[in-house]
Amino acid sequence: MKIDLNCDLGEAFGNYSFGGDKDIIPLITSANVACGFHAGDENVMNDTVKIAKDNGVSIGAHPGLPDLKGFGRRNIDIAPQEVYNLMIYQLGALEGFCKAHGTRINHVKPHGALYNMGAKDKDIAHAIAQAVYDFDSSLILVGLSNSLLISEAESVGLKTASEVFADRRYEDNGQLVSRKEADAVITDTDEALDQVIKMVTENKVISKNGKEIDLKADTICVHGDGAHALDFVSQIRKKLTKEGIDIQSL
Amino acid sequence: MKIDLNCDLGEAFGNYSFGGDKDIIPLITSANVACGFHAGDENVMNDTVKIAKDNGVSIGAHPGLPDLKGFGRRNIDIAPQEVYNLMIYQLGALEGFCKAHGTRINHVKPHGALYNMGAKDKDIAHAIAQAVYDFDSSLILVGLSNSLLISEAESVGLKTASEVFADRRYEDNGQLVSRKEADAVITDTDEALDQVIKMVTENKVISKNGKEIDLKADTICVHGDGAHALDFVSQIRKKLTKEGIDIQSL
Amino acid sequence: MKIDLNCDLGEAFGNYSFGGDKDIIPLITSANVACGFHAGDENVMNDTVKIAKDNGVSIGAHPGLPDLKGFGRRNIDIAPQEVYNLMIYQLGALEGFCKAHGTRINHVKPHGALYNMGAKDKDIAHAIAQAVYDFDSSLILVGLSNSLLISEAESVGLKTASEVFADRRYEDNGQLVSRKEADAVITDTDEALDQVIKMVTENKVISKNGKEIDLKADTICVHGDGAHALDFVSQIRKKLTKEGIDIQSL
Amino acid sequence: MKIDLNCDLGEAFGNYSFGGDKDIIPLITSANVACGFHAGDENVMNDTVKIAKDNGVSIGAHPGLPDLKGFGRRNIDIAPQEVYNLMIYQLGALEGFCKAHGTRINHVKPHGALYNMGAKDKDIAHAIAQAVYDFDSSLILVGLSNSLLISEAESVGLKTASEVFADRRYEDNGQLVSRKEADAVITDTDEALDQVIKMVTENKVISKNGKEIDLKADTICVHGDGAHALDFVSQIRKKLTKEGIDIQSL
Repeated sequence: MKIDLNCDLGEAFGNYSFGGDKDIIPLITSANVACGFHAGDENVMNDTVKIAKDNGVSIGAHPGLPDLKGFGRRNIDIAPQEVYNLMIYQLGALEGFCKAHGTRINHVKPHGALYNMGAKDKDIAHAIAQAVYDFDSSLILVGLSNSLLISEAESVGLKTASEVFADRRYEDNGQLVSRKEADAVITDTDEALDQVIKMVTENKVISKNGKEIDLKADTICVHGDGAHALDFVSQIRKKLTKEGIDIQSL
Repeated sequence: MKIDLNCDLGEAFGNYSFGGDKDIIPLITSANVACGFHAGDENVMNDTVKIAKDNGVSIGAHPGLPDLKGFGRRNIDIAPQEVYNLMIYQLGALEGFCKAHGTRINHVKPHGALYNMGAKDKDIAHAIAQAVYDFDSSLILVGLSNSLLISEAESVGLKTASEVFADRRYEDNGQLVSRKEADAVITDTDEALDQVIKMVTENKVISKNGKEIDLKADTICVHGDGAHALDFVSQIRKKLTKEGIDIQSL
Repeated sequence: MKIDLNCDLGEAFGNYSFGGDKDIIPLITSANVACGFHAGDENVMNDTVKIAKDNGVSIGAHPGLPDLKGFGRRNIDIAPQEVYNLMIYQLGALEGFCKAHGTRINHVKPHGALYNMGAKDKDIAHAIAQAVYDFDSSLILVGLSNSLLISEAESVGLKTASEVFADRRYEDNGQLVSRKEADAVITDTDEALDQVIKMVTENKVISKNGKEIDLKADTICVHGDGAHALDFVSQIRKKLTKEGIDIQSL
Repeated sequence: MKIDLNCDLGEAFGNYSFGGDKDIIPLITSANVACGFHAGDENVMNDTVKIAKDNGVSIGAHPGLPDLKGFGRRNIDIAPQEVYNLMIYQLGALEGFCKAHGTRINHVKPHGALYNMGAKDKDIAHAIAQAVYDFDSSLILVGLSNSLLISEAESVGLKTASEVFADRRYEDNGQLVSRKEADAVITDTDEALDQVIKMVTENKVISKNGKEIDLKADTICVHGDGAHALDFVSQIRKKLTKEGIDIQSL
């Protein structure tokens, strides 16, 4: 039994720092590198690809909507062809740095609003998947477990990785409880760790209404900003190891 | 004897059109495609790569400084490492669209202020050349004939193409007369055509002071905006053909 | 009886031209000046305020969403407080140029997606209206006739101007037929001119389903790009004058 | 005897925080508020104007070059008319928030490369000064003591405030030692405090070569990022108070 731990990296911009990339990178197996639309820029990307490679972490593209001011978190009413094009652009840009550093892209995980739109809107999901396929059909597309992004990726012929969240609660239909709701986040560490183990070992999670639902857990999303986040990831690693689950990249 | 005709394409942005891409493309052999920093965006790039491929025109990257407001024509006091990174980013982005359309980048020509800075500043020239080499050492770097961009490209091991201008006057040292001066541009068509033929057949040009100077002419820069520009390119083509010079891509 | 003719101006950006500002300006009474978010920049704004003032045309702010790539036409899921802030920012920026040129802002008309969101979403409409009021309570807010933008503006204490469209068809509920539908635009000039006169003299329009509906017509939106557009505005002016309707600013 | 303490505030952007605005604000008398070109955005500006007003700190505009990626620190080869226009735009934008919060702009201090270009280039200095004058002739322009920005501001009829730096070394000609040189910054706190007192009480400073030179000290630039910076400002305040110098806004 195995699991991947992925984290968004390279989300600094210009003079602005962001996240704790250097602290989290030894704890993860896959880095989702921002590509300049919602965050990141060419200087940050160059540094991020280098530290990911130096740490032996798999590199993924983390493309977002063209909305630096909103950090790519605001839905934009964008056409599927525009989504296709912004995917190709950002994938190419990241591959540029991978080529310069003698490494390669392994996976793709859309960011923020693009990830959420791709989970629920079939045309957007298809545009994302088709762009990844046309760019490099060997890439793995990471999406929310049970979402349209996963099914569309499979339909175009891509390998996929279903993502789960350690500290987020789930609806009965397998979607995440919206962050606008009070009980969206699991704040008790033990409860979150139990959820992780259940998801990885049983491919199941208990919804906020107490219903057991199916999902697939190929990779867990973790965060690197703040002492608490780092400690939480360390505890996840310890628990996984104790349960005999291998932590390895996709 | 042969010569390439290159033109900047894909310099539209969002809702803004620019240039007469569809009119000029049948008349040229190489298209320099804007990559989103000084002009162009992911939607324009996708369309431009497609029409270049459909017309059998060689595709080149046309990376610029991050200055959409100034169309990449304003010098920015930028570090060589930043130049390296913005080259890699834009090269990668364009290659994304080439991959999606089943074609490839053939050459690289920096835009505007980046081109001019690279012609005169050795560190900038080196950063440009090194980035192209690290990205893909088989690419041809296009620069001003006799400039530092050409010599630095050769020193890192790149193939180069020396660019000449049909309707611009030259200084005694082989640099272009600045557009800020009154006699920068040759307005008489016959004079410009004679200059073209002399440059291509003799590798010489008469400077603004009447001195004969050496240069190398691998490619001629032409423009596609306006009826006059198109007519001028047609006349260049006619004259070159009459002189028995092949018009073919790099 | 009187009517205002308004047109969006100053929508160029950097090296990109847009619209036919100099041709349309003698034909209109109110100019909506883009403020740098969806179009326009500080250089364009300076020129536009000058030509509007020189031509004796009333100056209005034309603020948009922060989306140059999408020309402010794509809805963004933006919070009311963010709308309030982007209104204040753009109003202030335009007033800067008005002060420098010794003139003033007379009205405010949101652009594109912001206009449409304000027409249908009460919270967005309120944020727009409150921002205008807090900035300068003497300004006139221009919105779609019968829309929430007009009612919210009135509720916060602003003067309003209801806008109608010469060549757009209306739904039974007074909303514009979406441009995504085939019959959104009236292409027959005489039909459009009749619609204008009916709207101005009777405050009524015939919907696409043939129903007579009420609206208020304080200002007509016209366009300046292309020979046809200019000719159409001239015909509107002729028809209005023939019917004895004064063409004057708000 | 009196002195002003000024600090750059509101340099966050979108999701990115920056500086320690809330910690430094009780220690200063003038806040230079970023206006959206090099840093800051409409949401940050709204918050910053509010906290400056709530803390009784004078509000100044802190306009910069259009270079978010370079934080406005890279010189751009920009025309004086473009400088004029970007000043007007940013001054207006900030005044928008001041109007909304019932307060006003008191002074203007250009940021980074714009400040440095204005100190050394007469045409740029004039454009900055003329823009401030045309916008509001009662505003105070803050510039480097002894620089062209101060003399041009005086020549157009503006009030000025000469700025000095507590922890920077000076050249014999009164310019700051470039940050590229090893001895640009005074790291010994006592030496910096002594420099402050000498500048404020004697209008003199000892250059890096030991020469006593004249300057004018109306305001001291301080910084708010990091525990050391805050402690340093507190020590400056203590020292000034002990010497009987009033700390008050311009």
